[in-house]
Amino acid sequence: MSPRVLTPVPLTKESFAPFGTVIEVEGAQSYLINEGTTTRFHKMAVADTDEDGGQSIISVFRGTARAEPVEIKMMERHPISSQAFYPLSNHDWLVVVADAVSTPGPEHLHAFLATGIQGVQYARNVWHHPLLPLVSEQDFLIVDRAGSGDNLEELFFPETVIATIDR
Amino acid sequence: MSPRVLTPVPLTKESFAPFGTVIEVEGAQSYLINEGTTTRFHKMAVADTDEDGGQSIISVFRGTARAEPVEIKMMERHPISSQAFYPLSNHDWLVVVADAVSTPGPEHLHAFLATGIQGVQYARNVWHHPLLPLVSEQDFLIVDRAGSGDNLEELFFPETVIATIDR
Repeated sequence: MSPRVLTPVPLTKESFAPFGTVIEVEGAQSYLINEGTTTRFHKMAVADTDEDGGQSIISVFRGTARAEPVEIKMMERHPISSQAFYPLSNHDWLVVVADAVSTPGPEHLHAFLATGIQGVQYARNVWHHPLLPLVSEQDFLIVDRAGSGDNLEELFFPETVIATIDR
Repeated sequence: MSPRVLTPVPLTKESFAPFGTVIEVEGAQSYLINEGTTTRFHKMAVADTDEDGGQSIISVFRGTARAEPVEIKMMERHPISSQAFYPLSNHDWLVVVADAVSTPGPEHLHAFLATGIQGVQYARNVWHHPLLPLVSEQDFLIVDRAGSGDNLEELFFPETVIATIDR
């Protein structure tokens, strides 16, 4: 069986809304602060990390590119928190999410091409693929949760049902 | 009266410890995730935003450089939350904080030179100067608090007691 081929579409607030929040200056509420020297693009995302005494933590993920075409063999989700990613260097990157079904397959996947000035926050319990940079190495600032409770669920597709990403 | 002159020292975890957290990959706990394709530099800072039902929010501050020598005429603090800044472009920037006294003056100030791959999280109630980029424009990702309660206190120095920063 040939793999399902996903063609990424540009990441927009509207198209990503079922899966979480696009973190971008474009279209954000903004106002001047600090005696007019700084523009605050306000509250682009609200972390959802309080469940069961959790805390918001800040980490860096240093991601590397996978061989192309990128193969989507598994997905993961965080049942009790959001997870936000924002690129620290200005390069496009890939975002792959799945519909809100209990056991998604390749037919439930959606691929987005994010720019280097777009982050995403996956909403709680949204199936997503691990980080997919398109350059050899790219750092991301991460806001997710520390605390008790099992906050990771992984789903591996059967080998015959991978999807590949065609750019 | 001539202004007090502050000479910034390099930002380090040790020297900044009284004021908050340095957010940097260097020295952070790290481990491989995502089938070995990603390094997680874990929990470089823990947001302190839960007071009074507050939430962690993600914003961007687009800061601009001030005329040099930079004059320090005021300070601010957030009595019920931390506030984290991480640069989105790799340029040095200035961090100015004050000792934990109720009414700091120039004699209580400390200046740090942060690199473009160092962020800081000001701890709750720590006096700090608003954002001080050194290039014409620099974006920062911010993690701070939304919620009820008065979370901003500003202190303006008398005109005769400014400090300037000499680099």
